[in-house]
Amino acid sequence: MQAMDIEKVNSMDFGEFVDVFGNVIERCPLIAAAVWSQRPFSNLEDLEKHFFAFIDALPQSGQEGILRCHPDLAGRELQRGTLTAESQREQRSAGLTSLGADERLRLAELNAQYRARFGFPFVLAALLSDPAAVRRELARRLHRPPAQELRTALGEVKKIGHLRLADLLGAHSAGL
Amino acid sequence: MQAMDIEKVNSMDFGEFVDVFGNVIERCPLIAAAVWSQRPFSNLEDLEKHFFAFIDALPQSGQEGILRCHPDLAGRELQRGTLTAESQREQRSAGLTSLGADERLRLAELNAQYRARFGFPFVLAALLSDPAAVRRELARRLHRPPAQELRTALGEVKKIGHLRLADLLGAHSAGL
Repeated sequence: MQAMDIEKVNSMDFGEFVDVFGNVIERCPLIAAAVWSQRPFSNLEDLEKHFFAFIDALPQSGQEGILRCHPDLAGRELQRGTLTAESQREQRSAGLTSLGADERLRLAELNAQYRARFGFPFVLAALLSDPAAVRRELARRLHRPPAQELRTALGEVKKIGHLRLADLLGAHSAGL
Repeated sequence: MQAMDIEKVNSMDFGEFVDVFGNVIERCPLIAAAVWSQRPFSNLEDLEKHFFAFIDALPQSGQEGILRCHPDLAGRELQRGTLTAESQREQRSAGLTSLGADERLRLAELNAQYRARFGFPFVLAALLSDPAAVRRELARRLHRPPAQELRTALGEVKKIGHLRLADLLGAHSAGL
C-alpha cells in the first residue's frame, strides 16, 4: 500500500475507503464504513478521532464485540495462517511466529484463562511488544477487575488502529 | 451447516458463535460478537431481536456503515466470485448469476446512480426476488427521500438477517 495524503482519502468513494481502511479496527469494516459518513477529514488525526469516537459511543456489548473480532496472540489462527495481513505482520514483528512449543502452549493456556474470565480475547498492540512482554502483560491483566480490563483492552485496540492508520498514511517519519 | 437448537446456541463460546452467526448481518461480525453478550437466548425470535436491537441503537453513520458492507446485486463481486457464501447463494437464487450482458449493464448503471444519490449500495433481500423485481425496486427506490430510503434499506438488512438465522436454525418448515 502506497502512502497517501488526506486529499486522496477525501476523494474516495465508500467502496475504496472500506477497501483501504476496513481493517484499521481488526475485522470491523463496519466501523470504517461508518466513519466515511464524517468526511471530509482535515488530517490523519481528524480521521483517527472519528474511528475512536465511534468505538467510544458503542454500548458495552458493541465494545466487547470489537474485542471478540480480534485473534489470540500466538494462537490457532497464527498456526493456521488465517490471520489478517495486518495481524500477521504485527505478530511476526513481536516475534510470536518463532516461539518454541513450550512457550506457545504457555501462552495458549493464559489466553484461554483470560477468555474464560472476561468473555473476550487478550488484545495487545503486538507491534510494540515481544514474547516476554506479551506473557508478562497477559499474566498481569488476567487478574484485573473486568470493567478496568475492558477499558485497557479498548485502549490497545486504539493503539493498533493508530499504528495501522499511520502506516497507511505514511506518517511514521512525520512523528505522528 | 447442520440445523441446531437454541440450547446448542447458548452453549457456544464467542469464537464458535461468531463463526456461525458472524455473517447474519453481511460482513458485520462485530454485530454477532456483540449479541453474544446477551446470551442465553430463549429462542430464535429472541436471538433475532438482539441482532435487530443492536442495529436500531446505532447512530445513523453506523447504520449507513452496515449498508456499505453489502455488495451490489449482480455487481462486480458476483462477477469476480468474491461474494460471501450467503450472498452468492441468495443472488443465485434470485437468478442474478445468469443475466445477459445488457441486463447486467442496466443494473450496474442503476446501482451506480443509487450509490451516488444515497452514499450506500442498493440492498434487497434477493432470496425473495427475481431479476425483473430487482430492477423495478431499484428504479423505484432510487427517487425516494434519503431518510425514508435508509429505513427501507435497513428493513431489507433485517429481512436478510431473518432468513439467514432461520436457515442456520432450521426453522424453515416451522413457519418462523
